[in-house]
Amino acid sequence: MTIITKNISLQTNEGDIIDITRDVDQLVRDTDLRAGIAVIFVSGSTGAITTIEYEPGLLKDISDALERLMPRNIKYMHELRWHDGNGHSHIRASFLGPSLTVPFKDKRLILGTWQQIIFLELDNKPRSRNLIVQIIGE
Amino acid sequence: MTIITKNISLQTNEGDIIDITRDVDQLVRDTDLRAGIAVIFVSGSTGAITTIEYEPGLLKDISDALERLMPRNIKYMHELRWHDGNGHSHIRASFLGPSLTVPFKDKRLILGTWQQIIFLELDNKPRSRNLIVQIIGE
Amino acid sequence: MTIITKNISLQTNEGDIIDITRDVDQLVRDTDLRAGIAVIFVSGSTGAITTIEYEPGLLKDISDALERLMPRNIKYMHELRWHDGNGHSHIRASFLGPSLTVPFKDKRLILGTWQQIIFLELDNKPRSRNLIVQIIGE
Repeated sequence: MTIITKNISLQTNEGDIIDITRDVDQLVRDTDLRAGIAVIFVSGSTGAITTIEYEPGLLKDISDALERLMPRNIKYMHELRWHDGNGHSHIRASFLGPSLTVPFKDKRLILGTWQQIIFLELDNKPRSRNLIVQIIGE
Repeated sequence: MTIITKNISLQTNEGDIIDITRDVDQLVRDTDLRAGIAVIFVSGSTGAITTIEYEPGLLKDISDALERLMPRNIKYMHELRWHDGNGHSHIRASFLGPSLTVPFKDKRLILGTWQQIIFLELDNKPRSRNLIVQIIGE
Repeated sequence: MTIITKNISLQTNEGDIIDITRDVDQLVRDTDLRAGIAVIFVSGSTGAITTIEYEPGLLKDISDALERLMPRNIKYMHELRWHDGNGHSHIRASFLGPSLTVPFKDKRLILGTWQQIIFLELDNKPRSRNLIVQIIGE
């Protein structure tokens, strides 16, 4: 059993939803580990990780759901103090969560055919992101 | 330290919320591992895993909350393209998440007395589900 | 590779949002493990764990979002049966989730500068909480 810590670097813009499945899968294949878990984690409080069927309709639908549930233009106390216009970004990120754990077996992530791992850039400006992928396995 | 990958097979119908606590607990006891984590993962983009106090009132309440927050009958772009009527299923699944990690110690899951692990079938048709339970421990 | 199971004890009141970052970080440093994961888990169905930028504005904003999305004063079937007034607590907890996995490297949690680990007391009465922190690493 061993632990390997890797990164995925992304240049993002506001609202980006990025399919990182191939990146994570490649990092797993690059190890000589047969089975285990990949923990994908965003260091930062305005990004999130989950899974979705990665097709343009659903990317619009999840953006619409975020806007409906945590609208950009309601009053945020964060805004009153910090004036960076991203109160909604933080709240969305806390609800979706910064961490996802995906098992792998026979050197492959165990995902559904129509299930991709996504990073959601919820901040309101371009960011350089350095996602952590920590692989624990044997 | 070792890794064991197991499955829980379920035949589900739309809206099912299934208590899988005993199944996961039994899989942990079937190993000879004393302490570690059980990662429960649904391969697929229209199911989710979380915990709840498993009693009929709350099962209705969580279904009601999902319908209130991500209604079935609003417009989904996924629907416009794919016509399978399950846009809401995907969005609900992405918010709740496909993965749950539960620690165990002394061969038992560390859960609250009134806390059960549930699988939520969010799709709009019967499904055969094969949940992954990956146990890492020593 | 080894597993260490620790606890964080908290005395909470309704609505508390507690920064547990230092506690988790200290537990990791107290081990002699260099890299791995810390799984933080609440045993109980009315608490949750996520990350946020821990500043007073956002603590109000996330409380407001919870009240807006899963209001205290709508009808809950849980209430009709159990009369303990905390239907909303359970639903909020199931959506936010009881578990968070944070990687560490060089004996330090890999968190953003403005990203703290929080426990949310969602129940409607004071509680004694005993969070699990399970550390797996080498």
